[in-house]
Amino acid sequence: MDRFKVTFLPHQRSVEVVGEESLIRAALECGVHINASCGGEGVCGKCRVIVEQGGVEGGVNEHLSPEDNEKNVRLACLARIQEDVTIRIPTESAIDRTVFSDKITPRRTASIKQVDFESLKEQGLFIPPVEKIYLELLPPDAQNHMPDVTRLIEHLKLANDEHKLELTLPVIRELPGIMRAHDFKVTVTLVRPVRDDGKTQLTNVQPGDTTGQNYAIALDIGTTTIYGQLIDLATGACLGEAGDFNGQISYGEDVISRIIFAEKPGGLAKMQEIVVGTINKVINEIVKRSGVSKEDISTITMAGNTTMTQLLLAIDPSHLRRAPYVPASTLYPPFRAETIGLDLDVHTIALLYPAISSYVGGDIVAGVMGTGMYREDELTLFLDIGTNAEIVIGNKDWLACTACSAGPAFEGGGVEFGMRASKGAIEDFSIDPESFEPMLLTIGDVRPKGICGSGLITMTAVMFEMGIINNRGKFNRELDTDRIRERNGVWEYVLAWQENTQIGRDISLTETDIDNLIRAKGAVYSGCMTLLEEVGLSMDLIERIILAGGFGSYIDLEKAMTIGLLPEIDAEKVVFIGNGSLMGARMSSLTNRIRKDVVEVTRKMTNFELSETPSYMDYYVAAMFIPHTEIEKFPNVKKKVEMWKSLPVQ
Amino acid sequence: MDRFKVTFLPHQRSVEVVGEESLIRAALECGVHINASCGGEGVCGKCRVIVEQGGVEGGVNEHLSPEDNEKNVRLACLARIQEDVTIRIPTESAIDRTVFSDKITPRRTASIKQVDFESLKEQGLFIPPVEKIYLELLPPDAQNHMPDVTRLIEHLKLANDEHKLELTLPVIRELPGIMRAHDFKVTVTLVRPVRDDGKTQLTNVQPGDTTGQNYAIALDIGTTTIYGQLIDLATGACLGEAGDFNGQISYGEDVISRIIFAEKPGGLAKMQEIVVGTINKVINEIVKRSGVSKEDISTITMAGNTTMTQLLLAIDPSHLRRAPYVPASTLYPPFRAETIGLDLDVHTIALLYPAISSYVGGDIVAGVMGTGMYREDELTLFLDIGTNAEIVIGNKDWLACTACSAGPAFEGGGVEFGMRASKGAIEDFSIDPESFEPMLLTIGDVRPKGICGSGLITMTAVMFEMGIINNRGKFNRELDTDRIRERNGVWEYVLAWQENTQIGRDISLTETDIDNLIRAKGAVYSGCMTLLEEVGLSMDLIERIILAGGFGSYIDLEKAMTIGLLPEIDAEKVVFIGNGSLMGARMSSLTNRIRKDVVEVTRKMTNFELSETPSYMDYYVAAMFIPHTEIEKFPNVKKKVEMWKSLPVQ
Repeated sequence: MDRFKVTFLPHQRSVEVVGEESLIRAALECGVHINASCGGEGVCGKCRVIVEQGGVEGGVNEHLSPEDNEKNVRLACLARIQEDVTIRIPTESAIDRTVFSDKITPRRTASIKQVDFESLKEQGLFIPPVEKIYLELLPPDAQNHMPDVTRLIEHLKLANDEHKLELTLPVIRELPGIMRAHDFKVTVTLVRPVRDDGKTQLTNVQPGDTTGQNYAIALDIGTTTIYGQLIDLATGACLGEAGDFNGQISYGEDVISRIIFAEKPGGLAKMQEIVVGTINKVINEIVKRSGVSKEDISTITMAGNTTMTQLLLAIDPSHLRRAPYVPASTLYPPFRAETIGLDLDVHTIALLYPAISSYVGGDIVAGVMGTGMYREDELTLFLDIGTNAEIVIGNKDWLACTACSAGPAFEGGGVEFGMRASKGAIEDFSIDPESFEPMLLTIGDVRPKGICGSGLITMTAVMFEMGIINNRGKFNRELDTDRIRERNGVWEYVLAWQENTQIGRDISLTETDIDNLIRAKGAVYSGCMTLLEEVGLSMDLIERIILAGGFGSYIDLEKAMTIGLLPEIDAEKVVFIGNGSLMGARMSSLTNRIRKDVVEVTRKMTNFELSETPSYMDYYVAAMFIPHTEIEKFPNVKKKVEMWKSLPVQ
Repeated sequence: MDRFKVTFLPHQRSVEVVGEESLIRAALECGVHINASCGGEGVCGKCRVIVEQGGVEGGVNEHLSPEDNEKNVRLACLARIQEDVTIRIPTESAIDRTVFSDKITPRRTASIKQVDFESLKEQGLFIPPVEKIYLELLPPDAQNHMPDVTRLIEHLKLANDEHKLELTLPVIRELPGIMRAHDFKVTVTLVRPVRDDGKTQLTNVQPGDTTGQNYAIALDIGTTTIYGQLIDLATGACLGEAGDFNGQISYGEDVISRIIFAEKPGGLAKMQEIVVGTINKVINEIVKRSGVSKEDISTITMAGNTTMTQLLLAIDPSHLRRAPYVPASTLYPPFRAETIGLDLDVHTIALLYPAISSYVGGDIVAGVMGTGMYREDELTLFLDIGTNAEIVIGNKDWLACTACSAGPAFEGGGVEFGMRASKGAIEDFSIDPESFEPMLLTIGDVRPKGICGSGLITMTAVMFEMGIINNRGKFNRELDTDRIRERNGVWEYVLAWQENTQIGRDISLTETDIDNLIRAKGAVYSGCMTLLEEVGLSMDLIERIILAGGFGSYIDLEKAMTIGLLPEIDAEKVVFIGNGSLMGARMSSLTNRIRKDVVEVTRKMTNFELSETPSYMDYYVAAMFIPHTEIEKFPNVKKKVEMWKSLPVQ
């Protein structure tokens, strides 16, 4: 897509955007504030801008007069960029606020050393986890009438140097027919063991040469969503992917409510049935999209948290939520996928990522394996933030992990107008320092319906920097705006008046919402601090932060540091990996090296239970401020706050 | 039971019998002929005897006059022995025929060295295949919250020196609940591997101490019948046994007709379902009889011929009946019994006896293992005779085997009045050398319905010795009796006139019947000869004969040698083992030593296909005589024939 340069006046700030981007998103991208509170539907009519050079498409509706039109006035939220343009923002303030708002956060500047298959091959360390081998067997005759299984195994021994082979009944059952279907020319599928002294499973025999069709499924089983990818084992390419909400969501949003449901009579079977149902939908979708035959899918590698894993396998999860929080197992043997109801071929082998503990599950281990942090020197902080936050710290020499309950704030829960990150959620935000009018961006550019987690962080950060809220999240009651008001005894800031919302009510951010966010970020930060203390280190030694998970992918790094969710660190050293669980599942589908390493990783990763660490509560109390009781730990935040304070408008 | 002495006059022969035995059976037991052709129901009234000393119960009906009664005349078939008696047989002949008929064949004189568990223990070779171990685990607490599986495995490692353990999902699923059901005191079931480097399967976990309840099932899956035993693994005792006809019998009596049925659409599934149905009936019966809980049945060890095994596992058997006769496999991995529909606990592990070839199956291997012939010096001929006869020859140094089709004659098939060995079948027989009147004994002492295999052999042998048939099985047309006659162009001997039978027709033995028997015994004998030739030995080197199988158990050894089914050998050297398949299954349930040895045995046992051995046909032709074209190979038979010839009555 073509890229165009947009220059905003009087700020003299420019940004390059792709064609069709709206003016308002371009403005926010380079830190330019435009009053806008209807989310981009042109309803409020406030985001008036003047096109000084070049032209835009759209941006005109009944809010603009014919004179406005003549003067090239446009509504920024409706105007689409088609060429290089210069835009003037009508503004009463003479201050260039943009100096503090250098919103050009590189999202993926630090590189992740993903597994490099070619290099592993060169080192002799690449171990394909699944191989298909084409064999031309000698047909039996009067002199050579050994059993079909023996014929196959002897051939593999002599011609292919394959030993320690294991067959199961389903394969033996089909062998006589398949061998004779194509004149004793067959393709066998071999699934390699994790341990060098283990057995190779001969999981499938097909007539003729099917070595060109060898596929795997990688699957992330999240509490909220389930994502799958279909992978070509020959090329490593992803041939199809799909995701869906975990059907268990109707029985509770978090793992605890799922566990409680599973404790009811018949509940466990129901939970299992439902998650398998969702997985089957995802499987059938990616199979359809990729056009492969299910018979050629050799393995499905799944990663999920400990609760999701136990529910998938129909293992009573009730002890996961009761002290001392003991999982049934952290390691599960491979099994045939169909035995738990997965809609896959009788030969497909299911592999599950091992877990560390009840609250650091296979999804986190998969992320750690996928990023390769366990193989590298840098001291890395791996974070997966959601209702529960999992924290892993370490490098190639050691690894420590813990989990803490952040509460639902990051996912829009416990927030009065909170919602998931979906259409209509306010996801980005700025505020005019004089009029205190907001600029809202919503997902899907529609009128706002609520606030999602990343929006909540951004708002809190922006307001704190500008002094609109103090370090305990309380609004400055002195400010001259009717947007800050007391309602039912709670102070709030009105983000959008009811006529501009989809819900017919004012949407506001309350002090209670901010308090919930502070608790959530405080839990995560103090979790990191406690874990570091347990291993005798401090936050400033962290050389890299890896953010995993859906929420982590949408987070505004600078804002997350402002509220004290993340420690201040050079943005270059932060890596967003998105769905780390899926990434890990895909990687171990592609090389057994990861499966071998994971045994070692799970052995050396030390799990700490925060509930048993007295200092956790101290760290938590200290983190119950924005950004922290010791703002000295956040020098950049301190600097910004002081600069805003020094501005004449304050 | 009390035993009484019966003395027959004028023969002066005595025999000891248990009380309530009939006089006619006592007579046959010591080789005394009494005319009797109604099978013991007192219908023909021919078996008149005089009680000279002592008394009998019964033996009186309307065939006897008041005068007979006064003279102590009784019908031998109805008279029961209650005390020592002397009986006179009214006989026209002055010859004491009993000299040739020394019918005191010891059935089990040679001993079998069954596995001696105590001696194995002393040698350190006893390996219990299944062990239950009681564990008192430390309950988890805040300092010790390892996963349930890890807790169990670590305890087994540290406290019990158990390593290389393998768990399956069904066990893991129950672990959390069971561990907590009895305060972390549990009993684990460990199933040992066959190979020393294999893994021990942890197949069950039970709350509390259940080490006292550890059971196994041994099962013989025959083409005709299925027998099971429930075994206490602590004592080796059989706590219950049961058998039933294999339900597949309705689809054909022999393996070939079963295979043909399995080749029809849906046929294989049907065959599998039916055999599983019969097995489940047997299982439930022995479980009921023994009163154990299914949860305490750790293993089921099954042995069957190759066709029965493939049908049980739903493996297409069609290639078993087509040259070059290739089985799907000879070795099957252990699997959970319920996965093939067996009505056993989810934890019960199924083990299958390995086979050698398409026609030397797991039942034969089980017999070889059960007898221990593979561990001993003596050159042994192992025979399992039925529609198919399996032959194993060898000792601890080598083993060779083959199978031949004997046809159905031994099981009463292809014989005009043939029937299975069940109530009403003529099972024993003698003939008066002057009047040529028969003495019949039937199973159940009822009027005859037909002739079973062992009866057929006895009749043929008796008639050949007495010169009533010649060495090609043809009746002497010169004899003065209306019992020998031509009907529809076939010569026959009438065993029972219609008024004395259950079927309302004369029951006879025809030359065609005898011819079928000669073919059957010829096939077996020439199979043995061919196998011996292949290994460079001759029949006279055989030091022991082991007879296995249902038919083998009823065979009259002397008569079998007379017709040339078996080579002449000292009766002391013949061992009847009955159901060798069940015996082997029971033994390997009790010690893994057998399971380890069987791997070696199947490796060293060489299978010969008679159809590929040209000399087989020559041996077969030579064996198509009674006892053989070279009667010199049967000196005892020759002697008897010559003595009968020398008698003046001839």
